[in-house]
Formats: sequence, structure tokens, C-alpha cells
Amino acid sequence: MTVRAGVVVTGTEVLSGRVTDRNGPWVAKQLLEMGVDVAHITICGDRPGDLTAQLRFLADQQVDLIVTTGGLGPTADDLTVATVAALYGRELHVDVELEERIHAIVQRWRSRLSSSTDSEPLRAGIRKQALVPHGAESIPPRGTAPGVAMPADESRSLPAVLVLPGPPRELQAMWPDAVESTPVAEVLARRARIRQDTIRAYGLSEADLAATLRTAESRMTGFDDLEITTCLRLGELEIVTRYEESAADTYSTLAGLIDDAHGAQIFSTDGSTVDDIIARHLAGRRIATAESCTGGMIAARLTDRAGSSAYVTGGVVSYANEVKTSLLDVPAGILDEHGAVSEQVAAMMAEGALKTMNVDVAISTSGIAGPGGGTETKPVGTVCLALAFADRPTITRTLRLPGDRASVRSLSTTAAMHMLADALSPDHRMEPGSQSSEHT
Amino acid sequence: MTVRAGVVVTGTEVLSGRVTDRNGPWVAKQLLEMGVDVAHITICGDRPGDLTAQLRFLADQQVDLIVTTGGLGPTADDLTVATVAALYGRELHVDVELEERIHAIVQRWRSRLSSSTDSEPLRAGIRKQALVPHGAESIPPRGTAPGVAMPADESRSLPAVLVLPGPPRELQAMWPDAVESTPVAEVLARRARIRQDTIRAYGLSEADLAATLRTAESRMTGFDDLEITTCLRLGELEIVTRYEESAADTYSTLAGLIDDAHGAQIFSTDGSTVDDIIARHLAGRRIATAESCTGGMIAARLTDRAGSSAYVTGGVVSYANEVKTSLLDVPAGILDEHGAVSEQVAAMMAEGALKTMNVDVAISTSGIAGPGGGTETKPVGTVCLALAFADRPTITRTLRLPGDRASVRSLSTTAAMHMLADALSPDHRMEPGSQSSEHT
Repeated sequence: MTVRAGVVVTGTEVLSGRVTDRNGPWVAKQLLEMGVDVAHITICGDRPGDLTAQLRFLADQQVDLIVTTGGLGPTADDLTVATVAALYGRELHVDVELEERIHAIVQRWRSRLSSSTDSEPLRAGIRKQALVPHGAESIPPRGTAPGVAMPADESRSLPAVLVLPGPPRELQAMWPDAVESTPVAEVLARRARIRQDTIRAYGLSEADLAATLRTAESRMTGFDDLEITTCLRLGELEIVTRYEESAADTYSTLAGLIDDAHGAQIFSTDGSTVDDIIARHLAGRRIATAESCTGGMIAARLTDRAGSSAYVTGGVVSYANEVKTSLLDVPAGILDEHGAVSEQVAAMMAEGALKTMNVDVAISTSGIAGPGGGTETKPVGTVCLALAFADRPTITRTLRLPGDRASVRSLSTTAAMHMLADALSPDHRMEPGSQSSEHT
Repeated sequence: MTVRAGVVVTGTEVLSGRVTDRNGPWVAKQLLEMGVDVAHITICGDRPGDLTAQLRFLADQQVDLIVTTGGLGPTADDLTVATVAALYGRELHVDVELEERIHAIVQRWRSRLSSSTDSEPLRAGIRKQALVPHGAESIPPRGTAPGVAMPADESRSLPAVLVLPGPPRELQAMWPDAVESTPVAEVLARRARIRQDTIRAYGLSEADLAATLRTAESRMTGFDDLEITTCLRLGELEIVTRYEESAADTYSTLAGLIDDAHGAQIFSTDGSTVDDIIARHLAGRRIATAESCTGGMIAARLTDRAGSSAYVTGGVVSYANEVKTSLLDVPAGILDEHGAVSEQVAAMMAEGALKTMNVDVAISTSGIAGPGGGTETKPVGTVCLALAFADRPTITRTLRLPGDRASVRSLSTTAAMHMLADALSPDHRMEPGSQSSEHT
């Protein structure tokens, strides 16, 4: 049986675009991985009327579970618990034990910030956070805000609701306890098994994939048992398919057709990201970066992974030409002759990083991220990449990337990651003795 | 008169948390800045039933305008235009001129990716993207997908709908044309003037702000004319207030009360971010970074700004100790004696960067981001920061930051930005001749 859920994200800061919501996607992902079908995520500001309308909408859509995030703080704009309680017709009571616990946490935080007086307005905020609706289960706080799990109310046609705090760290820490609360566990017990598979390609156009999918639809039986979604971002095309276990053979057929048509662009069929592939292929080799236009983004991305100190030695952000010369040994003459944005300079940057930091592989970028700095021959979006190795010739590449400064920097970072993954791959074919150069 | 809008974000990749939505917040922000009240953002997958339910929900909430994003691609899971047309009871027709225009764009892209055959399935995808509902206005594509603006249909109680593509770059490029389309311009003509002001603080607890707001509420007249929302992220507390122009004096009173209580923590009242403040205070001075646990994140953040090449010279990511020694001249003895995560090493890293890159200011980080590497005296989350200057003594600081690897890295980056902004501020008070060290 399919269990359906909806997620309600509250907070004017999210609704108004000042803060990027991380909770809706995170909760949806957890639920999907548990085999729950997420139908809707809705975002509202800190207004009880709008929140009530969204809760009613999800109830009307007959979801089995609503998860709300945010609105559990001490300020007056935090009103999720009161709004949920009103909708379910429950009184609120102060959980005195919880109140003392929150008070202790707040005092610990405040002492760090050297606040002192324990005023009545402060106490009022804490008391508010300790309010629990009758009949609901409270979930222990990981910051100052406890969660609340409310069972379904069939007489009102209302599903179970799980109320979680807004700070992502608190929400995520609370999640294991939350899914074990009685109201949530009861809903989860009803779910069936759904599979999800992901194919990732780099450098494949959405139009070409769409053509392949249309052909597959006309040739395959059972195509409609697959829920296929595609998404293009930063040059990577992701094809995600969800299906019931009985449709596993149908999925294999589709995956085969996609591989026949686009095998050269596919880099992952097992959920790995390009970051995973690089970490795996480095296999003991050490890496360094030499970045100009990406300004540290490649180093930050490589070191984002736990355990990356096993293979990342370091990097140089050579934003100014003097740093290219002083720390990466790029001769001033080469800079003058070819310009900083050139395959020659990118190659020397990577080779300089290789030597200075004594590593096995080094990757470099030099480009024009904009908005200024473009010329007729090297417009904004021109980016040169290079890879230097301890044991084979340097590879260089020039790209013309679209979009604004942020777009050029992100696309360059992704392009560098793919160039690296390809070159490190055990099936990588070297053109012996030559520098490969590809203009796209 | 208040004009209300709702935003519908479509895409299973967004609903399922695989991709972080950038469109909902962006569109909401544009609308708010234009004085439109955004009541709801909803996210659904690529299923016509769920999309229709969300459109009907927003119509029932009596919004004046719905903006949808995504679902305009060539693949079968892209169905926004057809779903909107069905809800409004409009036939679809192929706009032949638009079809040719999209075909030309697709061919240009495909030739870059060296695809060749112009197959019928490919043509079918393009024809699908050129479908426009009767009575709607089409908005020229910036990628391959045109937008659609549909006027309100009062007989069906349906508001105006603006249908925009999913790729953020295409959507944003199309926005100026979209708001000038007749159906949207008609709605916007009815809006009133709303002001929005932002106060930003660093190191202020939400509980203390809540207490101040409660006190203000009991003492001020007109407090209810202010819509106040607060949001804490990465140690920064943001207080945003929206009000009609007639409540401007009330807002000044509130802002004064907040400043009286928390002036020492407030760093911005004019919308500036800490990044803006740093760029302004550098005022011709040049900066370099020396990063360990943040692995390039500070350099990436500093170079994120257009024009940052005027003051960012470069940086070193000294992940391995050998790089701290070779590129930043940190003596091996100091590393052995104090350990890499120490104020002594952080200070020498910053001083090394200052000297090697010949700058006026250098900032360094060295810490334990986790999950491994923590000890009893230096647990995960211990981060040492240092600032070295050409003309005054080095400042160091040790922090104990909460959360996982990503959290420790982000909080360290923000802490470094604030330490830098404070130190560069013209009112910064130096403790003469001493190294200030603050443990929190």
C-alpha cells in the first residue's frame, strides 16, 4: 500500500527568499528513502491563517502524514504548535519537566554569549516552547525546541502530523526519535516497497534524452510502470526512475536502451556522484589544486568529504598574477605572452602545484567569470582547465560557459570535477605523447 | 491595495530533495520587492493531478497571481503548460514561428555536443515546447523553453498565471519580459507600497531578542502594524520587518529599542551583509587567505563578489602539514609542539600568507571539522582563527562549533568573515601590544 506524505515548511524568511530552505528537501528525501510517496511540499510564512490553509489542503489531498518544519522558537512569530493544536481542537498544556530542560539549555547558550539577567519575558519565551497539545507526544529537543507528534484524527479527517523545528541541524538530529514516535511509526508501518534508480550523464542534451525516452515508450511494454524524471543542472543530466519491485525487469530494459544510446556520456548508474568517483579513483594518490576563476571552489568541494585529508594535500588560489608566479612558478614571460586565461598558463599552474605540493595529480582553472574582464577573443565565460600528473603528460581544455559570474564559477567547478574523474578512470585512454585540447 | 501571489514549483527532482529549488525563493523575493504579498510557495512533482490540486488551492486562497516554475522541457514528464491549459479550459496550438526558433536553438546546442541526426522524436519534443494555450501570451525563450502568461478567468474564479521555465538562469533572464506581459502587468498595476527593513546581528541569541520584542510589544503603540520575522543561521540573527509607509515612525521606535538592547551585536541595519562590509572596509587594502579546515571556502566566498580581484590577491589551502610548512613557512617545530589546530599555528599561517603573498591583511583557519580527528582536549568543532596585518599585531581566537562536518566548516567561514569585518571596521579598538584571545 502506498503511504502518502506532505511537508509544510514555515517561516517568512524562507517564503520571502531570504533563506534557502534545506528542510523540505531533506525531509522529503528521508521519507522517499523509507518508501513513502511525497506528494507536496508547501511553504508559508509565519501567519496562522496561511498555515491552517496548507494543513487543510494536505488533509484534503488525503495524505497519511504531514511533517511541518519551523515555527517552534520563543518569538511571537513562531506559532506552529498553537496552530496545529487549534486545527485538531486540542488544548495546550505546559510540560513542566520540558520547560526546565529548555531553561537549562538556554542558560548554557546565554552564558556563552555573556547575557545575564533571567527576565520574565525570557521565561515567557521558554514556557511557550514547552507547550504540548493534549494527546500529542513530545520529542526531546536537540536545540531549545522540542518536536511534537500528533496522531491522526479520523473524526476530523485529519492525518498524523509531525511538528519539527526549523534549524536543519536540530531537525536532523531529532529525526530518528521522531520516526519512532507512536503516531509516525503507525503510519510508516503501512508502507510498501518502492525502488529508485539513478542514471547520471555529463554532456548529454535534454533534447536527445527526450528523443530516446520517446522511442523507448513506443517500443517497450510496461513503460508506464516507471515514473521517470529528468533534471539538468550544471551540465549533469540526472535520470531518476521510481517503480514497484515487480517492474524491476522493465527498468533494466529501459536502462539498457539509455546506455545503448548515450553510454559515452553516462558516468554513473549506481547512485555515485562525480565526487564519489573521484574519491574512489584517486585510490591512494594525492591531489592539489591551483585555482584562479574558481577561487577555491574546487578545493572546498574536494575537502567537503569526510576523510578527504587522506588524498587532498592542499591548494593555491592564485587570483593575482603575482601569486601564479610566486607560489606556482608560472614564468612572468608566459603570462605576458599568452595571458593568464590560456591553456599554457593553466598547464603551468597545474604543473607548478604538482611540483610545489609534491602530489600525484594537480588540477587548475583560469578563466573570466565576469561580469568584467571579457575581450573579443576571450569573452566572459572563457575558462581554461588543466590536469598535471606525476606520471603522464598534462591535459588542457578550454570551455566557453554560459551565464553570470556564479554560473561560470559553478559550471567550471563541475567541468573540472568531470575532467578529473575521466582522467583518473581506469579505462581512460591516453593519446600518447600529445597534449589533448578540446574546444567546445 | 494588497496584491497576493502564490508560487508553484514543479519538478520531481525538487520535490524529492535531489535538487535544491532556487526558483521559488527567487520569484518570491522579486514579487516582495515589487510590493506583492507572497502567501504560499508550493512544490509538486511531475504529476498533473498534484499540480492541478496546487493551482486550485492557490485559487481558493484568492491569490491574484500564480507563478509556476518548471515543467516546460521536451520530455514527457514536463507538463505544466498542458495542465494549466486544461484547468483554464483552453485548447493548445503550435506556434509555428516559436517552433522554428526553438529548433534553431536546439540545433546550436546539439552541434556543440556533436549530436547529429534530426530525428522525429527530437522534432516531437520541440513541437511540444512550442504549444501555447489559446488566449495566452507567449514569452520568448532564453534557453529552449518559452514562458506563458495566462490572464485571469473570472468565470472560473481563476487568477492570472505566469508559467516560467525551471533552469534558474533561463527563468531569471526571462523575468523582465514576463512582468511586462499584459496578464501580469494588469495584476501588478493594483499593488500598494510596502517597506521592508532588515537588522542583522552576530552572536545574539534568539531568546534574548524574543525577550526584547516582548518588552517592545508591551511598551510601544502600533506594534501590530509591523510584521516582524526573525531567522537565525550560521550564528547570524536576521530581523526583517515589513510595514506600510504610514508605520515608518513605529518601525524607527522599534529599531531604536533593539539597538539599545543589542547594539554591540548588531552589524548591519541597511541591508548590508558581512560580505558587503568587508568589501567596503578593505578600501584598497589587499587580502589573502590561509585555510585548513575550511579548505578554500573563505577564498571562494571572498571571490564570489564581482570586482573582488581588486582586493583578493590569493590564498593557500594548507590541508596537509607539509603545505603549511612549504608554502606558509610555518616551522615544523611549532606544528610538533602545539599541533596544527592551535592559535600559534593559525597565527603563523596568517603571517606566512601575509608575507608570501605580500598583502595588507591575511586570515587563517585551522580546525577539526570531523567526523574523525577529535581528541579530548581538542574535540570535533575546535577551530582556531587568526588575522595578520601589515601594520598591527596578529589577532587569534579559538571557537568550539557545534554540528557535523558541513556545519563546522560553514560556521567557521562565517566566524572568520565576522572576525575580519570587526577588525577592519574603522571603530575597531585595538588592545595595544597584546594578542587578544577569546574562547567561546
